[in-house]
Amino acid sequence: MKIVRVDSEVDDITYGAVEPDGIRLHRGSPFVAWEPTETVIGWQEARLLSPVIPTKIIAVGRNYVEHASEMGHEAPERPIIFLKPPTTIIGPLQPIRLPPDSNEVHHEAELAVVMGRVARDLAIEDVGPHILGYTAANDVTARDLQREDGRFTRAKGFDTFCPLGPVIDTELDPQESLSIVCRVNDEVRQSGTTAEMIFGVGELVAYISRIMTLLPGDVILTGTPSGVGPIEDGDRVEVEVEGVGLLLNPVVAR
Amino acid sequence: MKIVRVDSEVDDITYGAVEPDGIRLHRGSPFVAWEPTETVIGWQEARLLSPVIPTKIIAVGRNYVEHASEMGHEAPERPIIFLKPPTTIIGPLQPIRLPPDSNEVHHEAELAVVMGRVARDLAIEDVGPHILGYTAANDVTARDLQREDGRFTRAKGFDTFCPLGPVIDTELDPQESLSIVCRVNDEVRQSGTTAEMIFGVGELVAYISRIMTLLPGDVILTGTPSGVGPIEDGDRVEVEVEGVGLLLNPVVAR
Repeated sequence: MKIVRVDSEVDDITYGAVEPDGIRLHRGSPFVAWEPTETVIGWQEARLLSPVIPTKIIAVGRNYVEHASEMGHEAPERPIIFLKPPTTIIGPLQPIRLPPDSNEVHHEAELAVVMGRVARDLAIEDVGPHILGYTAANDVTARDLQREDGRFTRAKGFDTFCPLGPVIDTELDPQESLSIVCRVNDEVRQSGTTAEMIFGVGELVAYISRIMTLLPGDVILTGTPSGVGPIEDGDRVEVEVEGVGLLLNPVVAR
Repeated sequence: MKIVRVDSEVDDITYGAVEPDGIRLHRGSPFVAWEPTETVIGWQEARLLSPVIPTKIIAVGRNYVEHASEMGHEAPERPIIFLKPPTTIIGPLQPIRLPPDSNEVHHEAELAVVMGRVARDLAIEDVGPHILGYTAANDVTARDLQREDGRFTRAKGFDTFCPLGPVIDTELDPQESLSIVCRVNDEVRQSGTTAEMIFGVGELVAYISRIMTLLPGDVILTGTPSGVGPIEDGDRVEVEVEGVGLLLNPVVAR
């Protein structure tokens, strides 16, 4: 199933499931009281929103060898985690706003995990049923501020710095080799596959769940392949994760 | 006014205001539809909870010269910010659980700011009316993991690592010199005042609001005075901020 969250004229903000003829609106959410309605709306009647609003976003640094290398680092011994505030989240087609404090904002295309159940102290083999599905994310980063601070919170924490979507696919298997591509104005900048991740989804979720309880809807960004680079006012940046579709966001100066 | 959030037999989880005879329960929250009821309950009828559940907790590192110094650092040129996940929050008397992955968990007594209004790109002089009030916090930290990682997210992100409370005081002025004390088993470990902060509350809120929009209820931990040290299974740790009262939490091994 492909899950979306939409703003439509039919019923304000609603969850839905993608069908051949459009989007079937649902009651409740994928986390509670999930139930199809009789209403199917066309794509042109719906504005897609970020498919989830998490209580927290946990991101993973340097989880692809070639990206760690392009940043001047070795592959890490254990996952490097950091948090992005929920105020970073935007949906498809919403603009990434470049803050005046940075002169070098980069795209980072990533596979995002959406948790479906409360997860605490999980063993790797128990992770699967706790995941609702997968979506695409752009871990937008002010690279100059990351260098200046030597830490991630400011550089990755600006409003609009976490585009998410367009759908949550509940059947993907990231242990297969899913392609992750980033294009800026149709030029391919990043091209990798989930098979290149240093720590797989099971290892990441288990590791994080030993630290903090994961709640339904929480999002884990699993790291970016090599090829990160700048985005500028007027650019169009696309993140495409195989099976999830295309996450397109314009870039504007704030 | 001193605001509390309580679990009582009268009405599940409710906000209240402290009065001479007990706690006057309120409808709504301090952020919306705040209205007193006719009901006043005694302290023995109420279990105090964390006075707020924020969408994000922004913490500030090395904001007291002597603490920066005891950690081997100079005073920073700009605020060092990091995030703690909301799953770290516990209320008064709830146990801090020591995770098996750390052998050196430290207390850090802090003044916490609770935001009252949406705040974005604030000038320092406009910060005041956006603050609801102040409470006490313990920025519990696995010091060994902080050293090992060279970053804060894991070390400061374990469940129960952010005791908060007991009240939100809406009339405190941290520009005055408010005392911050931490005791472990009645022994004074930390003793400082808010006058020693390198960056004051106005500077901190303005700085953070340039990065991320602050929402009503969001919490800012303003840094800890010198004297941080270990807490162990069976300890009782108290954070006392002048005007806010005593935040007491037992410590247990997980």
